Amino acid sequence: MTDFTGNHILSVNQLDRDAIAKIFETANMMLPYAQRKKRTHVLDGAILGNMFFEASTRTRVSFGSAFNLLGGFVRETTGMSSSALAKGESLYDTARVLSSYADVIAMRHPQSGSVKEFSEGSMVPVINGGDGANEHPTQALLDLYTIEKELTASLQTIDKMHIAMVGDLKHGRTVHSLSKLLAQYKNITFSLISPKALAMPDEIVSVLENAGHKVIITDSIEGNVDADILYLTRIQEERFTSQEEADLYRGQFRLNQQIYTKHCKSNTVIMHPLPRDSRSDANELDTDLNLNPNLAIFRQVENGVLIRMALFALTLGVSDQVSKHESDVHWFSRK
Amino acid sequence: MTDFTGNHILSVNQLDRDAIAKIFETANMMLPYAQRKKRTHVLDGAILGNMFFEASTRTRVSFGSAFNLLGGFVRETTGMSSSALAKGESLYDTARVLSSYADVIAMRHPQSGSVKEFSEGSMVPVINGGDGANEHPTQALLDLYTIEKELTASLQTIDKMHIAMVGDLKHGRTVHSLSKLLAQYKNITFSLISPKALAMPDEIVSVLENAGHKVIITDSIEGNVDADILYLTRIQEERFTSQEEADLYRGQFRLNQQIYTKHCKSNTVIMHPLPRDSRSDANELDTDLNLNPNLAIFRQVENGVLIRMALFALTLGVSDQVSKHESDVHWFSRK
Amino acid sequence: MTDFTGNHILSVNQLDRDAIAKIFETANMMLPYAQRKKRTHVLDGAILGNMFFEASTRTRVSFGSAFNLLGGFVRETTGMSSSALAKGESLYDTARVLSSYADVIAMRHPQSGSVKEFSEGSMVPVINGGDGANEHPTQALLDLYTIEKELTASLQTIDKMHIAMVGDLKHGRTVHSLSKLLAQYKNITFSLISPKALAMPDEIVSVLENAGHKVIITDSIEGNVDADILYLTRIQEERFTSQEEADLYRGQFRLNQQIYTKHCKSNTVIMHPLPRDSRSDANELDTDLNLNPNLAIFRQVENGVLIRMALFALTLGVSDQVSKHESDVHWFSRK
Repeated sequence: MTDFTGNHILSVNQLDRDAIAKIFETANMMLPYAQRKKRTHVLDGAILGNMFFEASTRTRVSFGSAFNLLGGFVRETTGMSSSALAKGESLYDTARVLSSYADVIAMRHPQSGSVKEFSEGSMVPVINGGDGANEHPTQALLDLYTIEKELTASLQTIDKMHIAMVGDLKHGRTVHSLSKLLAQYKNITFSLISPKALAMPDEIVSVLENAGHKVIITDSIEGNVDADILYLTRIQEERFTSQEEADLYRGQFRLNQQIYTKHCKSNTVIMHPLPRDSRSDANELDTDLNLNPNLAIFRQVENGVLIRMALFALTLGVSDQVSKHESDVHWFSRK
Repeated sequence: MTDFTGNHILSVNQLDRDAIAKIFETANMMLPYAQRKKRTHVLDGAILGNMFFEASTRTRVSFGSAFNLLGGFVRETTGMSSSALAKGESLYDTARVLSSYADVIAMRHPQSGSVKEFSEGSMVPVINGGDGANEHPTQALLDLYTIEKELTASLQTIDKMHIAMVGDLKHGRTVHSLSKLLAQYKNITFSLISPKALAMPDEIVSVLENAGHKVIITDSIEGNVDADILYLTRIQEERFTSQEEADLYRGQFRLNQQIYTKHCKSNTVIMHPLPRDSRSDANELDTDLNLNPNLAIFRQVENGVLIRMALFALTLGVSDQVSKHESDVHWFSRK
Repeated sequence: MTDFTGNHILSVNQLDRDAIAKIFETANMMLPYAQRKKRTHVLDGAILGNMFFEASTRTRVSFGSAFNLLGGFVRETTGMSSSALAKGESLYDTARVLSSYADVIAMRHPQSGSVKEFSEGSMVPVINGGDGANEHPTQALLDLYTIEKELTASLQTIDKMHIAMVGDLKHGRTVHSLSKLLAQYKNITFSLISPKALAMPDEIVSVLENAGHKVIITDSIEGNVDADILYLTRIQEERFTSQEEADLYRGQFRLNQQIYTKHCKSNTVIMHPLPRDSRSDANELDTDLNLNPNLAIFRQVENGVLIRMALFALTLGVSDQVSKHESDVHWFSRK
């Protein structure tokens, strides 16, 4: 699919390489507006229903700002208590009602499959902002987009790259969705590094292997993170099957500059879905990496805005009109 | 009253037939903007204070979207905990303060009479978005507007129609307010169908009878719902005076396609204030009615946006300038 | 400092008399827009991140409306539970992320020093909306601006005025910050009236005395409130060190029209940071003063909008472009 107009974005499974290319090309086009070199009024008067039935400040604000950057208004809700859902209303009804108030809806909900069910009642395009353990396609897209941009900067490609995924690969919907997208590329080496109890599900490993990628499964970062991309995720101690295993792995998947220097390439790109836990007993990604130019975590955030702008422009069918509605920015813009 | 400029909308008691006609005429004018055939910038730069001191996602978002559709900004609050009201501030002070931040205020509050008290301190028009058990005038107006539109489509009028109201007629502020508005019309037949313990208050029945309408009070839908309009409301079991009575009536006021076919006219319009409880043990309005073209519940929702747009345009005195500020919509609009 | 472009506003300590003069001059310029005589689109397309990690309806809405009055969009958050801060994210990371979504940030947070820490990670200007017991500079500025405007109206100046501050002078960050700003003026008489246990901290008294001002410390309003400005703050009974002391002072610092007539000058200006507690057992500032033309409490609120508009225009470097982007207001505007 390359014509997104009027369609829902519910799952990475919808997206083939042509679709991904179209989204990334549109995201590239959004850069001057996100950077405030220009602004665009292309969605001036349109309304985003930013329906977060589960709290998530950063994802909610990212969607909202992306829509504002296109000139549109945002109506929103946070949390479920105040919702008619709590009074036994079906997701179908909720969608029929809320889609009367908006031109497009971004929705997060704690229940797996809820966003798809909601989309069936909606009269406007629905973009999945995360439905429980199931999907978070805009995160997967912004991760993939970041990988492509970072590699392109060093004249590499996603095809043939080496990516190391580290941490809780069992529960992280982020790494699952990203892996599904990456499976469509060619000859990637995946180092899947996790405690044994938190390994990548077999189903995902099969998808990667069946697509011809090389998969290394290990529980040690030593010798495995000299990759082009190093994607870290959080391990929560309560995820382990026993305290013994938790003790065994404690601190084994943290990264700081010293470990980076010892085990990574000089230009290994460091990624993380954020938030990173910076408390002293967590410290999964040490702040001494903040000065490392290969730390891409905040570029991921910025890319998230571009991807969400692109999805709004595409689903509302205005991607070719963005620059027609542009004007100058005359206020101080970010450092 | 037909000049609403600068006035509060607090109660259906303010609204005579001339006022209602003016609101409906203005709501009609809003249709192309709500349907995204056009957009209007008439309130570009104006600010709605969407002050919901009691949570209500759909009503809050409906007011907010209506204001955005006229081009204005929305500032809002949800819930009471964060409010100075909780620190002993009077509604008068709260209104003085919040009306410094807005051009018009929509307010919901759990306490009966609170919105009127608030309006006395406000320097800008206040629209009642529901004050406890007391009033919810925009719901009554959107219900009446829906009735008029649905009947007009089949060449009928509110005068001389037959409306059946079903369910909890004792506590439902919706049916009380709607009845007061309908009382101003001529020769209506009201079938008031409820459990005995949840009957329409005598005060409302008197208003209807004194205005010359025919009122039938019954506890059975059989023989009483072959009406032009069938308005259902929810019965909550805890409202009954005894469990025996709850048991007696359980399931007697639900509607599905089979009951509709058996007891209603072929074009009886089905209305409900929503949300409807679609859980299997509630199922007050079965989803098998979703394909019935006479199910008007989602048209009520859409009409709510038109009514709220009309009230904003009227209270801010711009109803005759809406089309002067219009422009084209170039994005994908709803199915 | 008189060029605020790109700078944070974190503390009154940043502000010398030139800076204050620049802010007030800019605030004056905002009056026609706040009063809806005109509107301005100067920040059309800009985004405020209104990040309230502690609930505060009025301050949050005041910042948001001020930004809307300049034509900009507002994205916001209320409360901390939904925030990544709760998952161990550092304020630095939170700032890096949220500043990717906005052109300027207004932030409130319960923890002293948090806004400064946050500002160090932010790529856009941060305005302190209150950080715990520490600072609330926009409140201090709106108070000082109100004092100047009220005195100017009666041909007086801040230099040489007599101000009485009454109530809990120990814990009120409002009176501390205001005192620091006033210290920069000349020959002011300060009557600091409070229970002994709730007296102004020595540190602040020293600042005032070292700057050559006259300071009177007392626990009685009699003979001390015939001032030009009377600034009242709330006393919470639990602040006293003993119940005996609380009993001793109960009701001694309340103001009503009778006390005003007896103890104040005929044009003593009454100020209060609001909310005032209007419950019968509190009644710190009696509502019978509402008709007293010298009651400036609601003018403080309106001035707060002007000050916040000024700070946005200054930090975003558009203060000289506001009128270039103006247009007419054609809707009903406030009484």
